[in-house]
Amino acid sequence: MESKSYMVHMNGNGVHTQDDVHIINMNGNVRSDKMKIRKKRWNIRASEMSKNTLNPIRAIVDGMKITPNPEKPMIALSIGDPTVFGNLPTDDKVLQAMKDAIDSHKYNGYAPSVGYQKSREVVASFYSCPEAPLEAKDVILTSGCSQAIELAINVLCNPGQNILVPCPGFSLYKTLAVSLGIDVKHYNLLPERSWEIDLRHLERLIDEKTACIIVNNPSNPCGSVYSKEHLQDVLAVASRNCIPILADEIYGDMVFPEYTFHSMAPLSRDVPILSCGGLAKRWLVPGWRMGWILIQDRNQAFGPEIREGLVRLSQRILGACTIVQGALESILNNTPQEFYHDTVSFLKSNSEICFSALSSIPGLTPVRPSGAMYLMVGIEIENFPEFENDVEFTERLVTEQSVFCLPATAFEYPNYFRIVVTVPEDMMAEACGRIREFCQEHYKPHRQDTNGLDQ
Amino acid sequence: MESKSYMVHMNGNGVHTQDDVHIINMNGNVRSDKMKIRKKRWNIRASEMSKNTLNPIRAIVDGMKITPNPEKPMIALSIGDPTVFGNLPTDDKVLQAMKDAIDSHKYNGYAPSVGYQKSREVVASFYSCPEAPLEAKDVILTSGCSQAIELAINVLCNPGQNILVPCPGFSLYKTLAVSLGIDVKHYNLLPERSWEIDLRHLERLIDEKTACIIVNNPSNPCGSVYSKEHLQDVLAVASRNCIPILADEIYGDMVFPEYTFHSMAPLSRDVPILSCGGLAKRWLVPGWRMGWILIQDRNQAFGPEIREGLVRLSQRILGACTIVQGALESILNNTPQEFYHDTVSFLKSNSEICFSALSSIPGLTPVRPSGAMYLMVGIEIENFPEFENDVEFTERLVTEQSVFCLPATAFEYPNYFRIVVTVPEDMMAEACGRIREFCQEHYKPHRQDTNGLDQ
Ligand SMILES: Cc1ncc(COP(=O)(O)O)c(C=O)c1O
Ligand SMILES: Cc1ncc(COP(=O)(O)O)c(C=O)c1O
Repeated sequence: MESKSYMVHMNGNGVHTQDDVHIINMNGNVRSDKMKIRKKRWNIRASEMSKNTLNPIRAIVDGMKITPNPEKPMIALSIGDPTVFGNLPTDDKVLQAMKDAIDSHKYNGYAPSVGYQKSREVVASFYSCPEAPLEAKDVILTSGCSQAIELAINVLCNPGQNILVPCPGFSLYKTLAVSLGIDVKHYNLLPERSWEIDLRHLERLIDEKTACIIVNNPSNPCGSVYSKEHLQDVLAVASRNCIPILADEIYGDMVFPEYTFHSMAPLSRDVPILSCGGLAKRWLVPGWRMGWILIQDRNQAFGPEIREGLVRLSQRILGACTIVQGALESILNNTPQEFYHDTVSFLKSNSEICFSALSSIPGLTPVRPSGAMYLMVGIEIENFPEFENDVEFTERLVTEQSVFCLPATAFEYPNYFRIVVTVPEDMMAEACGRIREFCQEHYKPHRQDTNGLDQ
Repeated sequence: MESKSYMVHMNGNGVHTQDDVHIINMNGNVRSDKMKIRKKRWNIRASEMSKNTLNPIRAIVDGMKITPNPEKPMIALSIGDPTVFGNLPTDDKVLQAMKDAIDSHKYNGYAPSVGYQKSREVVASFYSCPEAPLEAKDVILTSGCSQAIELAINVLCNPGQNILVPCPGFSLYKTLAVSLGIDVKHYNLLPERSWEIDLRHLERLIDEKTACIIVNNPSNPCGSVYSKEHLQDVLAVASRNCIPILADEIYGDMVFPEYTFHSMAPLSRDVPILSCGGLAKRWLVPGWRMGWILIQDRNQAFGPEIREGLVRLSQRILGACTIVQGALESILNNTPQEFYHDTVSFLKSNSEICFSALSSIPGLTPVRPSGAMYLMVGIEIENFPEFENDVEFTERLVTEQSVFCLPATAFEYPNYFRIVVTVPEDMMAEACGRIREFCQEHYKPHRQDTNGLDQ
């Protein structure tokens, strides 16, 4: 009814003949042109940003022919999700914490965009230490570590600036930066030094437009864990050049028993650090999308501006699910030590199985990991003349042996592949046996190498 | 140990004297300059994007002196969170669905970035209708309706283009667009026509750079619900000008019993629509951050490009918590009709209480809502000579009566204020009584009006 009479009103005031519309549009805008304004057909294009949001893993995997050998069951060593095989469940206390949060009826409404004060406090005291004390105000809760990284890059960098990222490294850094018009420079990791950072290379890449250095420790895809001394060396580079650090510490504390995880913040008095983490890996619940940023700024180099920027950015889409936020106190404080210990022991033992099996395969050079859930394997590609590169190598490994490993081209590091060591032990052993068979079949060493072997 | 020897290696290869660094940096870059490269001090600035992420509600509320009268308990009619007073709990089935999802142990890992296939199917069939059929591929699950809106704006618009948003309207549209360099033009809603869109104004704003029209129905802050005919008129404008629509339908179906909610998509054969929704309002769990985009494209005007763009954008931070995704089937299919009905009945009855109480207060002109959870009230500001505008009016309403309503300047609509009608009934009645007292005290009608009253 109302709408009908409105139509009359409309018709009374501005019957939409072409001329009339022309006049309306002309109103106050002499240059306006009917033809320009009245597009004749739909012409909707996806935005530049959506086109520039490139996920190299998808791009590469989608381009691969992944048809397993029908005679062998598929073993996927490619999926960075520790939950897929069911052998690494989260702890019952973690699940109970969620159910308690639901039953409390307290966590259904909106939380502040940076997270509940109580949940921020809980994270702060979980990660606080005397050398780098944290309070609730230093914690921003996010939708997964991915959003933590997004907000951190977003607040530190303008288009036209650059960030330094590890190579090989987790692809999200580049995906996010490039889509925002931020340049990416890759600094080398050194496989022969257990993937330590090539510090000279890192420092050489720094220029006046460098907005931050991303350090990922423990590392995806390397499984490396840096010593205190190495981290101090990295911090010295940052300090000398006054560049803040984004520390991706999502695998923090997931290190094999004989190693120690060192968070970066306590190791520096002056370098401001945004440390990104979350529940995904250590608590084995990546789908829950619970992440955080710890603002580590003892030297006040970030000042209020970065904090305020993070708060403003957090208001765009708000952060983590309130049920998970409500469960956080119990998750962080009540998960038994054995749970953490058992996870790490399993990862270590599986890594050992994999590393020692692959070490004895001619043509492969696995790099021994010390944490996280990954292991990188070099391919002596010149000794596999049938294959051009890691993509072809891993493609054929699927076709013939039904084992899928991610080619490290996905991490900008050709002629390596990444193995995820979270699969059940028997699968891991079986997969290594098949990789051996595959390599034996295709390894055709160059004469030089043959000479070496013949001696 | 390794790191120590690395230091030696470093020192052996490149002792970091100033000259040496200069040489390294000069390498391949003749213009490079030691002073430029070696910043002497920390100078970290928050990015332009973080500075341009402006939340007008925060800006206005944080600038207000909100000190309640100590003799009256505070009543906040400002909070768009239906859960805060505990009188509108979600349904037990909804909570049970979450606990079942947790107990199943099936929803802890990563979901695809656009959501589980099954959950997308469930949303598709919940909203599918013969005139606008939906399949799983037409659904993208997101972290709240906010992320749905962010992805939709992000995929449709480039910097320098513009979007048309309602005035008064939800502030997030502008917050997101401005931070991305997208211009915002406000089209008027007409309070005297129950907040229908001023179609002539809308069409006049369209130019060759208009990337989409955002339509919010039912509306925050207006509580308006558009008739089928009015929506068809809006669609006709979009169709004539070949502009896609972003339909923010987060309050879909939250309409008072005598009204009908019409989703836009079934009303048009040709206009491509991204319809944004979620669990937040109708299921009363805004903290859970479960939203979705329905891609409505019967005319293939979006084509594959927009779909692919949305998928790519969804990979940036991934979407909704997997537990909520896992619970979605049961939430959508098993929530009893009485729950929806009871919510809407309560909102209607509270709106009536509020509307009729305020209608009889000289100086105020409430606009009768027909859905959502809001009611807008006009202030005859010339008849309250003590107050400059809606911000001062609502500020003093807190100081004197401890009632807080959001000044509609937050929605770019001065001299109105918004009331949230989700508070318990007795609070609503008490608040209206206090607003009456406040107005009686401060209403000083102009001579003209006085004459009118004297007759
Ligand atoms: C190094 C690294 N950082 C961040 C993430 C993202 O974590 P989340 O799933 O919490 O977003 C991952 C996930 O694989 C990762 O490997
Ligand atoms: C009109 C409108 N759209 C979108 C949203 C955001 O919804 P969500 O909390 O699911 O992000 C709101 C929240 O208040 C709203 O009022």
